[in-house]
Amino acid sequence: MEKADITFRTRKWVRPEDLNANGTLFGGSLLKWIDEEAAIYAIIQLGNGRAVTKYISEINFVSSAVQGDLIELGITATRFGRTSLTMRAEVRNMITRRSILTIEELVFVNLGEDGTPQPHGYTEITYDRDRIPAHHLTQTLQQD
Amino acid sequence: MEKADITFRTRKWVRPEDLNANGTLFGGSLLKWIDEEAAIYAIIQLGNGRAVTKYISEINFVSSAVQGDLIELGITATRFGRTSLTMRAEVRNMITRRSILTIEELVFVNLGEDGTPQPHGYTEITYDRDRIPAHHLTQTLQQD
Amino acid sequence: MEKADITFRTRKWVRPEDLNANGTLFGGSLLKWIDEEAAIYAIIQLGNGRAVTKYISEINFVSSAVQGDLIELGITATRFGRTSLTMRAEVRNMITRRSILTIEELVFVNLGEDGTPQPHGYTEITYDRDRIPAHHLTQTLQQD
Amino acid sequence: MEKADITFRTRKWVRPEDLNANGTLFGGSLLKWIDEEAAIYAIIQLGNGRAVTKYISEINFVSSAVQGDLIELGITATRFGRTSLTMRAEVRNMITRRSILTIEELVFVNLGEDGTPQPHGYTEITYDRDRIPAHHLTQTLQQD
Amino acid sequence: MEKADITFRTRKWVRPEDLNANGTLFGGSLLKWIDEEAAIYAIIQLGNGRAVTKYISEINFVSSAVQGDLIELGITATRFGRTSLTMRAEVRNMITRRSILTIEELVFVNLGEDGTPQPHGYTEITYDRDRIPAHHLTQTLQQD
Amino acid sequence: MEKADITFRTRKWVRPEDLNANGTLFGGSLLKWIDEEAAIYAIIQLGNGRAVTKYISEINFVSSAVQGDLIELGITATRFGRTSLTMRAEVRNMITRRSILTIEELVFVNLGEDGTPQPHGYTEITYDRDRIPAHHLTQTLQQD
Repeated sequence: MEKADITFRTRKWVRPEDLNANGTLFGGSLLKWIDEEAAIYAIIQLGNGRAVTKYISEINFVSSAVQGDLIELGITATRFGRTSLTMRAEVRNMITRRSILTIEELVFVNLGEDGTPQPHGYTEITYDRDRIPAHHLTQTLQQD
Repeated sequence: MEKADITFRTRKWVRPEDLNANGTLFGGSLLKWIDEEAAIYAIIQLGNGRAVTKYISEINFVSSAVQGDLIELGITATRFGRTSLTMRAEVRNMITRRSILTIEELVFVNLGEDGTPQPHGYTEITYDRDRIPAHHLTQTLQQD
Repeated sequence: MEKADITFRTRKWVRPEDLNANGTLFGGSLLKWIDEEAAIYAIIQLGNGRAVTKYISEINFVSSAVQGDLIELGITATRFGRTSLTMRAEVRNMITRRSILTIEELVFVNLGEDGTPQPHGYTEITYDRDRIPAHHLTQTLQQD
Repeated sequence: MEKADITFRTRKWVRPEDLNANGTLFGGSLLKWIDEEAAIYAIIQLGNGRAVTKYISEINFVSSAVQGDLIELGITATRFGRTSLTMRAEVRNMITRRSILTIEELVFVNLGEDGTPQPHGYTEITYDRDRIPAHHLTQTLQQD
Repeated sequence: MEKADITFRTRKWVRPEDLNANGTLFGGSLLKWIDEEAAIYAIIQLGNGRAVTKYISEINFVSSAVQGDLIELGITATRFGRTSLTMRAEVRNMITRRSILTIEELVFVNLGEDGTPQPHGYTEITYDRDRIPAHHLTQTLQQD
Repeated sequence: MEKADITFRTRKWVRPEDLNANGTLFGGSLLKWIDEEAAIYAIIQLGNGRAVTKYISEINFVSSAVQGDLIELGITATRFGRTSLTMRAEVRNMITRRSILTIEELVFVNLGEDGTPQPHGYTEITYDRDRIPAHHLTQTLQQD
């Protein structure tokens, strides 16, 4: 599987609650946004709401952002393992046109109803909505 | 100008903090997400970080969401006024495949450095990055 | 039923976390406050904790607020439907003495234990505490 | 000055984000709500946005609340000092009809533009809007 | 039992979201931090995740903090009752080297599985990890 | 410089707002806690409130946590560069006695008043309070 281009979908507007005490974008807020975005991407690719963060490769913070800046986040799948999905993530500052950080490997693992890793059966990215679960996660949990 | 198709960009994963006391998606969280998304869209179209909510047309909540559901938000410009931008917004539940709500008119107004409405000079949607401000909002404020 | 006067009960103090990137009150925070206030009002009028937002009529943002301003929110019932309650809401800035916005119709619907609309049996506003549920919502859910 | 009756104005709906790990109302959320309510009350009585918490008398948590419960907060002034205002606060659970806690003395101090205590000149509660500041706190700060 | 020295463990960095409208540390955020810290301390001493706030003695706010300041919180047990634990808390500003507040008595009560006070069986502080529960609180709840 | 032992100082109690949609600890909340803890540690070691996240080495999530669990965070300095500080971080679940994750290198950079990297002049860990800044960060900013 070739490395796909990243589509930058989600955008954030840096508000006062996202700042650290220096007045620049708080690294913790940024990491929280990336983890949430990766979780959503993984659920759509694996067709399973029980996907959890397993590994994050090194992160270089090459630039930052200030209040009022627009940030965009992009994720793409780079490898489908048997029970895992590896993604690549990039965050950019739309105002300065600079990259903020890149994460080469964000690995999520596909869990079964018992909370242990389970094969997901996929080997390629979907650009359709063919794998999105059609029932609520919490209903599933109740039915177990 | 014809009504453009909506591209659903931003997606949210409904977490416990987004629930009301009934265990369904809190309407207030949903409205907060839409307002932030519209602000970002307006800044990109008007090339100005000083864009504020002026008007929201009626909202019908036709379905809801529960914890673990994926939500997608879409915004598109529908009319460029002299100092304003009108957008259409839709929110959908990706799990139930149902629309959650549609807002026909979300109007933002373009403000000048003195905080009063100012002509923005645009009449068409841009699909490029040609209008995104190239300086920080807060730097601008300091230079005033 | 005549349109009742609004009593402005709940007040908010605009703190840094409520600001947008322009330094004025974030529209999303404001909508969240109104939705929560309406939910509380509806529960007290309908005697049922299972009341959810169904419809919000158009909203004009006629003025705003800045950090440190005091905001007051008022809600009043304007129509009791068979399974719904229509309310009118207004938000004012106590410092500038100006209205921030008015919402003519905020409709909540009364849900039964199965999550579907259910008649509530009321036709008039109560100014007493005669309808407030006397058991926890979550206990009720457990007993279903 | 006699002890005035408390008017319970602000009401809260206990949502998942307000719970502690036991599933009951988090004491910290409750204290945060009371402090904000007292700050608002003090600003309205002293006509000054620069009013800060100085003292809180002992607090007995006599009952609690669970998700979905409605809480009401009441504050009343009990003593006007030269530079301070003493208030009494009570929080009640509307569902169980029980008091959650009472605070006999909540003292706020009136600060001048230099951040030191300053006489406020009032000796009685106002039930009108005659003391509410008519300018933004942040404008005042900028003019210093 | 003698009054033990307080070890200041947890430290906070005052960020924009912790400020009140005056730009100083919001009293409500501070009280929330203390209550959370006391809950954790009580669980470790009592070996029970079902420990809730029962009483807080008077609080004097002798100094404050501003954005960027470092705050440290210290808790120590001062008395083991039959079903309760009394703690002493202090909060200090590391930048100004001044005490922010001291709370002489913070009482938590040990609850049994039925939610009523239950003897905990301890009379002395542990400085080890010998009492920390070895199973999840939520698993316990499910097994009841 | 030898690798110092980690002292686990800060502890967190996993509350509903920290959960992802699966009901386990949200990775984003965890990363936010670590980044904040590292910032505080860096400020104390470098004696400078202007310290920002520059690099985070790979992260393995080896176990997780559920609501009600106690988490402890530990940070220690491992290398003092000319303008940087490298730290090692570990997070553990106190209930399960298992490590949640370890980060071998968390690099913060010391910034001067102009926002560029500046030598900090330190080569060893301090266990005292001899480097803590004695003035507010925001005062410094105003004096620039």
